Amino acid sequence: MLAPRHIAVFGGDTAAEAIRQCRRVGFGGPIWPVHPTRSTIEGLPCYRTTADLPDAPDAAFVAVPREATVDVVADLAARGTGGVVCHASGFAEHGTDGAALQQSLVDAAADMALVGPNCIGTLNYLDGAALWPDQHGGRQVERGVAVITQSGNIGQNLTMQRRSLPLAQLITLGNGAVTGVADLVEAMLADSRITAIGLHLEGIDDVAGLSRVGLRALRAGVPVVVLKSGTSELGARANLSHTSSLAGSDVLCDALFRRLGMARAHNVETFVETLKFLHVHGALPGNRITSASCSGGEAALVADLAERHGLELPPLPARTETSLRQLLGDRVAVANPLDYHTYIWGDLPAQTACFTEVLDTGLDCHLLVVDFPRDDRCVDGPWTTTADALLAAHRAVSGTACVVSSLPEGLPEPVGERLLDAGIAPMQGIRDCLAAIAAAVHIGEAQRRAEALSPLPTPTTATEAHHQLDERTGKTELAVAGLTVPEGVLTAAHAAPDAAAGLGFPVVVKAVSTDLAHKSEVGGVRVGLTSREQVRDAVAEMAALTDEFLVEHMVQGAVAELLVGVRRDPRFGLALTLGAGGVLVELVRDTATLLLPATRGQIEEALRGLRIWPLLAGFRGPGADVPAVLDAITAVAEHARSDDRLVELDVNPLLALPNAAVAVDVLVRKTAASDEASTRRRTGTRIR
Amino acid sequence: MLAPRHIAVFGGDTAAEAIRQCRRVGFGGPIWPVHPTRSTIEGLPCYRTTADLPDAPDAAFVAVPREATVDVVADLAARGTGGVVCHASGFAEHGTDGAALQQSLVDAAADMALVGPNCIGTLNYLDGAALWPDQHGGRQVERGVAVITQSGNIGQNLTMQRRSLPLAQLITLGNGAVTGVADLVEAMLADSRITAIGLHLEGIDDVAGLSRVGLRALRAGVPVVVLKSGTSELGARANLSHTSSLAGSDVLCDALFRRLGMARAHNVETFVETLKFLHVHGALPGNRITSASCSGGEAALVADLAERHGLELPPLPARTETSLRQLLGDRVAVANPLDYHTYIWGDLPAQTACFTEVLDTGLDCHLLVVDFPRDDRCVDGPWTTTADALLAAHRAVSGTACVVSSLPEGLPEPVGERLLDAGIAPMQGIRDCLAAIAAAVHIGEAQRRAEALSPLPTPTTATEAHHQLDERTGKTELAVAGLTVPEGVLTAAHAAPDAAAGLGFPVVVKAVSTDLAHKSEVGGVRVGLTSREQVRDAVAEMAALTDEFLVEHMVQGAVAELLVGVRRDPRFGLALTLGAGGVLVELVRDTATLLLPATRGQIEEALRGLRIWPLLAGFRGPGADVPAVLDAITAVAEHARSDDRLVELDVNPLLALPNAAVAVDVLVRKTAASDEASTRRRTGTRIR
Repeated sequence: MLAPRHIAVFGGDTAAEAIRQCRRVGFGGPIWPVHPTRSTIEGLPCYRTTADLPDAPDAAFVAVPREATVDVVADLAARGTGGVVCHASGFAEHGTDGAALQQSLVDAAADMALVGPNCIGTLNYLDGAALWPDQHGGRQVERGVAVITQSGNIGQNLTMQRRSLPLAQLITLGNGAVTGVADLVEAMLADSRITAIGLHLEGIDDVAGLSRVGLRALRAGVPVVVLKSGTSELGARANLSHTSSLAGSDVLCDALFRRLGMARAHNVETFVETLKFLHVHGALPGNRITSASCSGGEAALVADLAERHGLELPPLPARTETSLRQLLGDRVAVANPLDYHTYIWGDLPAQTACFTEVLDTGLDCHLLVVDFPRDDRCVDGPWTTTADALLAAHRAVSGTACVVSSLPEGLPEPVGERLLDAGIAPMQGIRDCLAAIAAAVHIGEAQRRAEALSPLPTPTTATEAHHQLDERTGKTELAVAGLTVPEGVLTAAHAAPDAAAGLGFPVVVKAVSTDLAHKSEVGGVRVGLTSREQVRDAVAEMAALTDEFLVEHMVQGAVAELLVGVRRDPRFGLALTLGAGGVLVELVRDTATLLLPATRGQIEEALRGLRIWPLLAGFRGPGADVPAVLDAITAVAEHARSDDRLVELDVNPLLALPNAAVAVDVLVRKTAASDEASTRRRTGTRIR
Repeated sequence: MLAPRHIAVFGGDTAAEAIRQCRRVGFGGPIWPVHPTRSTIEGLPCYRTTADLPDAPDAAFVAVPREATVDVVADLAARGTGGVVCHASGFAEHGTDGAALQQSLVDAAADMALVGPNCIGTLNYLDGAALWPDQHGGRQVERGVAVITQSGNIGQNLTMQRRSLPLAQLITLGNGAVTGVADLVEAMLADSRITAIGLHLEGIDDVAGLSRVGLRALRAGVPVVVLKSGTSELGARANLSHTSSLAGSDVLCDALFRRLGMARAHNVETFVETLKFLHVHGALPGNRITSASCSGGEAALVADLAERHGLELPPLPARTETSLRQLLGDRVAVANPLDYHTYIWGDLPAQTACFTEVLDTGLDCHLLVVDFPRDDRCVDGPWTTTADALLAAHRAVSGTACVVSSLPEGLPEPVGERLLDAGIAPMQGIRDCLAAIAAAVHIGEAQRRAEALSPLPTPTTATEAHHQLDERTGKTELAVAGLTVPEGVLTAAHAAPDAAAGLGFPVVVKAVSTDLAHKSEVGGVRVGLTSREQVRDAVAEMAALTDEFLVEHMVQGAVAELLVGVRRDPRFGLALTLGAGGVLVELVRDTATLLLPATRGQIEEALRGLRIWPLLAGFRGPGADVPAVLDAITAVAEHARSDDRLVELDVNPLLALPNAAVAVDVLVRKTAASDEASTRRRTGTRIR
């Protein structure tokens, strides 16, 4: 279907337009219009029905009313058609009757690939197959990027870009009733002419499927860029646990994309520029770049944005410095970023020699910043010489090179195409260029880690009512899972003072109840009690909350307080959140979220990325027992994976001590069941 | 000089090019070439010397070698010339001899305005005066924005933009030897044809001057946008105090721009788009916007970016909703952002009615998202109809409106100019459009606060050696300034236990020495000591550090720990930094920096902007005594302003208690003097 030899089109004027567009982009095979009454469409003879077609078409474009669409699709499936694009709307996006019709369509398609319904169509610029009943701005290419989008309009606008992006395939998903994002990514990976894949997503239904094909793309070295909108949905729900409020669905999307090495763009320009860079250069081996411009103004902009994106501009090698100093004279300070001034402006041999030196440093990527003048008001000359010099240098020594203009319009399309043909990325806008390079670096890192990565499981749904475990029960579960919890005793009010004395002061007394999510806010926690009398008074003051109390030995000397949480998302499955814990958790929001399963190495990397990491590592004081912290986090993650009933779990805080990690408070919610009472027994675990 | 009636040009081919450029942009007055040997330049008769000119020129362009430049400038000054642009380089940017030559140039200019040296020149598109010896992309305009830039190349590239930005003045500063940024801003404010001012700065030498003219611009309602590069210089120095490391020069720049209501752009595209928006609409009264697009894809992108920029998309008024529902039919869900679908696409009356409803809501700004097709590969029609509909709606009901394309190139220049002429901002790229709107909102807020704002004083320089006060002395100063400090006693080792008993346990013991900046890292602080024995042991363990100890009553029950710091910057003067204090200060970097003087209201606003503000306000627990916190911060600020010797001061932490704010630790550095020993006396202040 995505590289068709022949195409059938169904419908009137809309189908006629698709025929015209196929011709415009140079489709070479036969096109068969099917129409019940017209004799010709666009000069081609019409077939009455699918049965009349000379062969089962590789691809069909169906632009008939919605009810008729179902019948046509059934006929096409029966005939053994490769795949079909359904243009009509009025299906699942349109109430209950539409949803029922969509189900009929799905049934009619059976095993046949089906894009849509409610989509504009597909544009295959490789083979010239435009199943697309409207204008578009693209042209045939030999290789290029594939874009799969949930918005027809954004897809159509992408074809109008003037950025030399070679668009090979554009597929508008519509309702995605049959063929989804994962299927289409898989199809793109099967075509070696596709250099990179861009996804524009408004929602992700099939996380496990995307994870599966994303991992395949990563291992195949085909970079993926995602423009995911809907970030503002974060915070729309009220959540019980910290983890749920910290790991909203946009955070989970980020976790998914990071895991799979998919670059995320937040707007259309970055999406296009990143795809273009990846088309030319693919992923990068490292983050060390150079920049050359004829002015210090651009050099400073590059330096600022490089720092922001974690890119390094290392000093040039000594021999490069020496050569450049000779070439550029003593009025030019040789550095990286390099302001080579205008003394060699328009001098092809000198510029070629200068750029050859820079390209020959073996660093990971080389930028030449230049803005071309308006061709309607200026005469070109030295600008083109500058591009020629880079092209000559690149022919001589190769190297990963870009030309970048500070304003996007500063790099005209003809220049861009010349550069592209020579394997130099024509980048429009310093900002997006550096974002694209950073994306290529991150994708490279992910590719090198791809072997260790496991696909995400299909999440189990937890739709039943769920309830909260009391703290004692939750801690017992954690202790069984291998975490250290404070030594403690569950007791009635009158026995609390003796229990405290038995543990040794100071102690903590907590009201125990399944109704208390945030005990400290309702006066259900008293810390630092140093005598029987204080314990007695504390218990008396909490009498209104409960008649059961947890008396615990008070853990002191923490280096840092951590949050370790897991939540089960109906689409993403289990997500592990680590971060600064205690009272600052929601204020500081210093957290990292990983989808499970995650390796100990991935967990450690996430921990090292936290702003509070220096506290754990020993910043201005003793560090924490990091292996114990990792043991604890890993145990939480494994515990969550082993318990299908777990809905959410917060350890907050996990106290990171110099010689231990102790889960001091825990909140667990599970789907309903009645067996947890049996685990209520004293299982105090001594702190090391 | 900036609106000349006549122009003199000095030099050969370079001057000839300036004449051609003047003619190209339509200069109407006489141009007088001055050359010692040529008889004509560009067909104009040459004068031999300045003295031969028929009149003192309003403006002169001097493009002769650097030594000769000084003589020409002296002659021009003597003749009473309005102002001069010096093109030659080789002055202060070029070693000691160049610096000496620049001083001669400054002397020669005397009171005459002088732009440069080492600059390309100036482009006055209002009067057609191009003192500019090169190509450029601009055209004459009747009103527009002024851009003052420290980079000639960025200036030249800005003239090449294809974004319908009406550029009225472009001034490249070069070395700014005589006429600086502040002078030029002042000149721009005097011309009512200038609608907004853009500054591209690599450094800020005259902060007080910029503050003075910035305040004038704010009060005059002329918006200023700054593209300031060099953010990556932050962290280049090693600093002693937290405040110095948190308030690096880029943070001080931000503080300055925020104070003056200058919008900051971080790249050229945002700079251009923000200037364009401000040219059309000026500052905005509020942050409530609407968005209309024919697709949900763009609506979601707008929603995401609006949230990121603090812009609101409120629900549409009920009557608007009703009207739109009638207009658009029940297949369209009426909301804000509005996806009006394509049912009315190409229908001028229906689109006009739709946009009229939206514009008539009285909200602060209205976006119509539309990308025009490539005109070389598509036929226009409905896109232009959409623009026509907005123009008609705008004529009918007015309103602050923009058309925005999702890709910058999606809004062609001719359409942009049509919209601009009608008072609709043609915005290129959703990302920069929303950044520009947010900038206009912030400028509006600053304009409404402008009356209360005072100009910044010229900073006193503190070049002498400075030294650190010991903690006891520092606290005594703070107590005199009105802060509450813990009750404490300065004591020798043997007397420490008795001193502690006299204060009452628990106590804190600190080693006192002017050599200890971060005492806790070297074991110089012991907290929570509850007996004479513990005090005796603590003192014994610190014996290697000092023989003087501060024994203090330990303050408990803090709601939050704050950092309150002041540093004196040689260019910005005194800067006050507030933030989360204690051990997390440099990890979390939750800080706000204000330049002094600052009002109590400004300080409170900064405090409310911190992420830890909810702790102070009472988030999951009792709040702090905010008036006491503000008293303490204000006292620190006033103390710093009253002491010219102060170099830096850190109160960290200022403990925010439910009923007080106590300065528990302080670090003070001052320039050298010998009088502080006299303030060493016991001045314990009881905690309320």
